[in-house]
Amino acid sequence: MSPQPLPSGQDEYRILREADLRDYLAQLPAIARQLGGAPTTWSIGEVGDGNLNLVFIVRGRDGSIAVKQALPYVRLVGESWPLPLSRSHFERLALTHQARLAPGLVPAVLHHDETLALIAMQFLEPHIIMRKGLVAGTTYPRFVDDITTFLARTLFFSSDLAVPAAEKKEGIAAFAGNHALCKITEDLIFTDPYRVAEQNRWTSSWLDATAARFREDLDLHVAVSRLKLKFMASPEALIHGDLHTGSIMVTERETRVIDPEFAFYGPMGFDIGAVIANLLMAYLASAGHERSPGERQAFEEWVLGTVESVWTEFACKFVELWRTEGKGDAYPVTLFAGAEGAARLEAERQAYMAQLFQDTVGFAAAKIIRRILGLAHNIDFELIEDPKRRAVCEARSLRLARGMMVDAAKFPTIGSITKTAQALRDWQPDFAG
Amino acid sequence: MSPQPLPSGQDEYRILREADLRDYLAQLPAIARQLGGAPTTWSIGEVGDGNLNLVFIVRGRDGSIAVKQALPYVRLVGESWPLPLSRSHFERLALTHQARLAPGLVPAVLHHDETLALIAMQFLEPHIIMRKGLVAGTTYPRFVDDITTFLARTLFFSSDLAVPAAEKKEGIAAFAGNHALCKITEDLIFTDPYRVAEQNRWTSSWLDATAARFREDLDLHVAVSRLKLKFMASPEALIHGDLHTGSIMVTERETRVIDPEFAFYGPMGFDIGAVIANLLMAYLASAGHERSPGERQAFEEWVLGTVESVWTEFACKFVELWRTEGKGDAYPVTLFAGAEGAARLEAERQAYMAQLFQDTVGFAAAKIIRRILGLAHNIDFELIEDPKRRAVCEARSLRLARGMMVDAAKFPTIGSITKTAQALRDWQPDFAG
Repeated sequence: MSPQPLPSGQDEYRILREADLRDYLAQLPAIARQLGGAPTTWSIGEVGDGNLNLVFIVRGRDGSIAVKQALPYVRLVGESWPLPLSRSHFERLALTHQARLAPGLVPAVLHHDETLALIAMQFLEPHIIMRKGLVAGTTYPRFVDDITTFLARTLFFSSDLAVPAAEKKEGIAAFAGNHALCKITEDLIFTDPYRVAEQNRWTSSWLDATAARFREDLDLHVAVSRLKLKFMASPEALIHGDLHTGSIMVTERETRVIDPEFAFYGPMGFDIGAVIANLLMAYLASAGHERSPGERQAFEEWVLGTVESVWTEFACKFVELWRTEGKGDAYPVTLFAGAEGAARLEAERQAYMAQLFQDTVGFAAAKIIRRILGLAHNIDFELIEDPKRRAVCEARSLRLARGMMVDAAKFPTIGSITKTAQALRDWQPDFAG
Repeated sequence: MSPQPLPSGQDEYRILREADLRDYLAQLPAIARQLGGAPTTWSIGEVGDGNLNLVFIVRGRDGSIAVKQALPYVRLVGESWPLPLSRSHFERLALTHQARLAPGLVPAVLHHDETLALIAMQFLEPHIIMRKGLVAGTTYPRFVDDITTFLARTLFFSSDLAVPAAEKKEGIAAFAGNHALCKITEDLIFTDPYRVAEQNRWTSSWLDATAARFREDLDLHVAVSRLKLKFMASPEALIHGDLHTGSIMVTERETRVIDPEFAFYGPMGFDIGAVIANLLMAYLASAGHERSPGERQAFEEWVLGTVESVWTEFACKFVELWRTEGKGDAYPVTLFAGAEGAARLEAERQAYMAQLFQDTVGFAAAKIIRRILGLAHNIDFELIEDPKRRAVCEARSLRLARGMMVDAAKFPTIGSITKTAQALRDWQPDFAG
């Protein structure tokens, strides 16, 4: 609460319209200077296509900014589904951490206002949402190096491998209040797709039998319940929490990770799995976008290679950070002295990565299934207009995902996943059930 | 900070002497009434024999109370090792939770003062510290039922199996500030006994070679490092955090768990393992206390049977709570509908318990090793006056513990542990190295 009451309405949350935003920004000298010219000349457009928030692009004479305002409900569903504005606080907090841990890979925060649940940030231009580029069949040569740097650095440097336990516990506590966003994940990713839920949808009627089978598949229900528990109770690192290709903006030369409002201390495999899942969906959706056979073959090969490189380069960078910056309270080097000790610790690092890979495979599978049988779908599939053609791509993805979730041991390497994905590329599902 | 300054010194922490405590308690009407008579007639004695705090027994005409005050340093070591007074806050918070979750198994809190880091509580009489009773060879017929009720209820009802994820995250955050106490455990239990550390001590010279071997044993160092990471980053439930037999007060008819100042959200196996470790030490120390062969045989049989029952009755109660009160966000019953679903969920409960047992075995091993090679020892061994005789009992315990930690898979059941302990009861170590 402000000690001095502000003019009526100024100390309370309100949903900003374009005109309100203009007045609001005009009062912020640094922002007004960055935009340049008279506020009346600024162009303001609401462009949010996500599920939760308003997003404005403000263009002035000298520069442009993006302004994100949280709504008090889920935009995708409406006012019937309230959602705390505090997520804006956690998003800003996560952006700050990420900017420190992985410089140059997130948009710079220019201003934030907790009351308005608003963040003004660097406008990324000519970046586009990566998912749109993938649907169009575009390849991104910088992506692997950038995203694996982002993953390795944000995850490693917030983990027990890098920081003292006290600092880690303070971090966990700082993000514990973001539980409403975690709950969305817990429900929409780890629960609803596997049971009758009003908000589920899928490409009907083609996938009706598959969806029904997933709702009865107890192997899958056990596996997804283990993943859910791991999601809820494994604060390994500060994770982005929603790291799909719609949360990544790209050019051929740059990569920026945006929208970390789901951030909290959770399992690392959830972020890595999100990236891999969305690339696998881009790959298996690609056949649905080709206008002539083989048209997108080079793109598809790039995507599969990217899936492999995301894991291998992430693992390489993460382990190297552990070797050189492993100053946390876990695995103290004093217990691994000498050449023999160093060799044992190195073997333990590999064992740690093998477990992290298994987690990644399971979480990736969960992320695929929710996009096909749950509430929130993605344009990789949605833009395939012919429902049967879409359903074929989706069925291939579901088959891959089910295997990954239930038989994780059958996927000991990232190559075994891309090989299976490739084998499913032309598999014809039998929609009879 | 108080808005109105209190009389000098009254708003600040100070270490209480007997006279200060008398004046302080005299001003608390409910406490004064409970003690009865004039304050000048109360007898006050400091009886703390723990490692951290002052403990006063105050006896009045009508009743008695116990008063615990945290010192700003580790009592065992001195002012050179500061320790936050906030632990008293966390102890009171834990006692409150435990009283609600496991009624009648913790002392009632009568008064608390965060500034003085002081808790006044029910004086337990004629209860004695269980460890003292075990050294004397006493058996406790109520113990198994009470401690397994305490463990099952406090762990289950603070876990994701019982509570919504949001409530769990709030709980984690509420205890995150107790990290200085966690750090003691991280250092003294999971690190120092395995490296050269100034504060380590052991029964020298008999155990010199064993201690040196433990400092070089890389299998052990990998295993203890995994346990340490699990301790730091697995907030499964609100654990007591220091549940040895010195934190349990008993009579033949009653059991009370005291001193939860190490409480935080951690791995359940740490509490269960602590109970089992301390019973195993009581068993293997027993030979050191016998005055004639076989004198304590009935006691030793009771202890071994108790080790087995602690696990089996705990597991039985925990699983039954899960069946009947499993209303948390983990393993939602809607994913396990029908008879087949129920059977799968039941199988998953057993798998969960098998993993929890493995954790318990590992943590129990860590608790044994730290009491023999680390800073804090226990009277089970310390009261065996002859150093060689003591070292023999300790060496047997270390051998058992090393096996449990490194070859946990060789101990699939609690019976396999008691059998090994029994086989070691008369093993003669070769102290030559």
